[in-house]
Amino acid sequence: MPATAEDDRQFMERALKLAEQGRGHVEPNPMVGCVIVKEGQIVGEGYHQQFGGPHAERNALANCEAEAAVGSTVYVTLEPCCHHGKTPPCTEALLEAKPARVVVAMQDPFPKVQGGGLHILKEAGIDVAVGICQEEAERLNAPYLKRQQLGKPWLIAKWAMTLDGKLATASGSSKWISSEEARAEVHRIRGLCDGVMVGSGTAKLDNPLLTTRPPGPRTAARIVIDGQASLNETSRLIETIDEAPVIVAASPNARPERLERLAHAGCDFIVCQGNNHAARVDFLLTELARRGMTNLLVEGGSQLLGLLWDTRQIDEVYAFVAPKIAGGSEAISPIGGHGISGMEDASQLNRVEVNHFGDTICMHGFVN
Amino acid sequence: MPATAEDDRQFMERALKLAEQGRGHVEPNPMVGCVIVKEGQIVGEGYHQQFGGPHAERNALANCEAEAAVGSTVYVTLEPCCHHGKTPPCTEALLEAKPARVVVAMQDPFPKVQGGGLHILKEAGIDVAVGICQEEAERLNAPYLKRQQLGKPWLIAKWAMTLDGKLATASGSSKWISSEEARAEVHRIRGLCDGVMVGSGTAKLDNPLLTTRPPGPRTAARIVIDGQASLNETSRLIETIDEAPVIVAASPNARPERLERLAHAGCDFIVCQGNNHAARVDFLLTELARRGMTNLLVEGGSQLLGLLWDTRQIDEVYAFVAPKIAGGSEAISPIGGHGISGMEDASQLNRVEVNHFGDTICMHGFVN
Repeated sequence: MPATAEDDRQFMERALKLAEQGRGHVEPNPMVGCVIVKEGQIVGEGYHQQFGGPHAERNALANCEAEAAVGSTVYVTLEPCCHHGKTPPCTEALLEAKPARVVVAMQDPFPKVQGGGLHILKEAGIDVAVGICQEEAERLNAPYLKRQQLGKPWLIAKWAMTLDGKLATASGSSKWISSEEARAEVHRIRGLCDGVMVGSGTAKLDNPLLTTRPPGPRTAARIVIDGQASLNETSRLIETIDEAPVIVAASPNARPERLERLAHAGCDFIVCQGNNHAARVDFLLTELARRGMTNLLVEGGSQLLGLLWDTRQIDEVYAFVAPKIAGGSEAISPIGGHGISGMEDASQLNRVEVNHFGDTICMHGFVN
Repeated sequence: MPATAEDDRQFMERALKLAEQGRGHVEPNPMVGCVIVKEGQIVGEGYHQQFGGPHAERNALANCEAEAAVGSTVYVTLEPCCHHGKTPPCTEALLEAKPARVVVAMQDPFPKVQGGGLHILKEAGIDVAVGICQEEAERLNAPYLKRQQLGKPWLIAKWAMTLDGKLATASGSSKWISSEEARAEVHRIRGLCDGVMVGSGTAKLDNPLLTTRPPGPRTAARIVIDGQASLNETSRLIETIDEAPVIVAASPNARPERLERLAHAGCDFIVCQGNNHAARVDFLLTELARRGMTNLLVEGGSQLLGLLWDTRQIDEVYAFVAPKIAGGSEAISPIGGHGISGMEDASQLNRVEVNHFGDTICMHGFVN
């Protein structure tokens, strides 16, 4: 009895759910899940668990009796790889296992794959279907896809504001707006990211740690956009240099002795080329992606978020809103920059979720 | 078997629930509910349904067999009145009914009552208890109590903002931030208020109607804080003068011909005395309370909300937050004014509720 479209969706959804468990562990690889089905029953499943470790297909096959795999249908959330990377190609493992059919949610845009994996399977006489749950698969790996396709990391903006829309008072005071539970949620998100980014104003005013407490699956580098490389050597960022890297993104006119002093203190630095702030930030993002960063959490301040918003770099938003009132026409708003002129041009977030963290709510959504 | 403290609370809570049904119908009177209990059973109940109509006690007694009332316990959320107002004193009705015990949630601070009702009942040999569910009763009638005690109306601030804390773009564009469902909720709230207040900037920029659609139990007067009496006669507020009153709050230096012209167009006006804006707004609030207004909804803009916030006039907040991003360091924040200097001085709202209206959330809370 051949699988119906509904069966296909159902098994692929299971594979997507498995894939999701790799979040934070597999980057810069994509999250991938795999389910092997024989006569309507799942006979093996697995996912890509750890960067450098076996891929989802190999884990699923290892979880499956060799004879059950023969003639089976293999559901995999991303096109199987066909190149030797950290592990041998998954297409080889599949050809050995002899499934009758391989169902793939989406092609892999990775240059060494890009349809090549599907081609090998088809050539071997396997029935190949592509595009089952494609939208969900693309959403799951949107950060991976952005890095592959645009050479930029996925940018997650995070801020906490009062109920009257203040990120900080006019003097820059911002501690603490949100609840302890909300701050714990921020640490959870940090622990899934490759980097946490702030502007130099925030680094100076707040003197933040930006470490992840308790640690998550990833250790986020702490990135300061700091044109003049003015970060203080006595800052808490540098004091805790052994806990997570600090990357100072300086402009070409930063004084070399400043850069040297920061390097001596253990900071990494990137001298960002470009004629204006936007171009230099663009340069930085490209460089961070080149270094393998997939997800960056931007924690402010208003100016940096404004620049990134105006240049359409933000992909995802976590906005924490606390039931507190600050008042003040000179207080600081979460997103500065130029903004829009007519409210009809405001960007509607998609797939919005609202969660409560103590007395603070968090609206989470996507820009596209 | 005498009633336990738990019984007393339970019956008083029922009376409070009944009282609540008068909201919007009874002001400037307080909401009052009454439950008559005999041998542990409710034998009659009622509430003050309409300004000018019978009080809660009379409605409850009318709902009760005369002989059941004899020897009963009467629970009433506010001290029974002892003066001839629009209706004869409730104490008379109670003395006729001959209950054994009267339980009252709180004294009435109304000058013609103020303990006088309780005194009459005690003198007649009725067992009187005061203070059961007092906090809840005070909250229920907080607007009534504020007007009695401070001679000011209860001020409810309402705003809608983007998820990045913008009330409007730098050019003042604000349509529409919140969902249709959220706007319907605003109309529901307006329909319970005596007045809807805006600053002249908002009146000019938005050219709002500020009517209640569909109508609620009350028809809110539309109040514009408009020092120069500059409201345009072709504004939609004046075009719809037959639907709800328009009150222009002018300063003493408004040109008399402007006031005349507005009066001719059907506006009411109040010339507010005082040496500065804050003093004139204070004068206005006192005058509106004197005219019988209990609840005012302040719908902005940023300057008016800032002034009222700085002068601690706001009692209750409805803040609508839409999952939209506007950006812009020059965009307008919901509450302007001076604000606070340290975030630790931000005011925490109390008894916060979060509701969803379409994609927009509403945080509702109280300042005290």
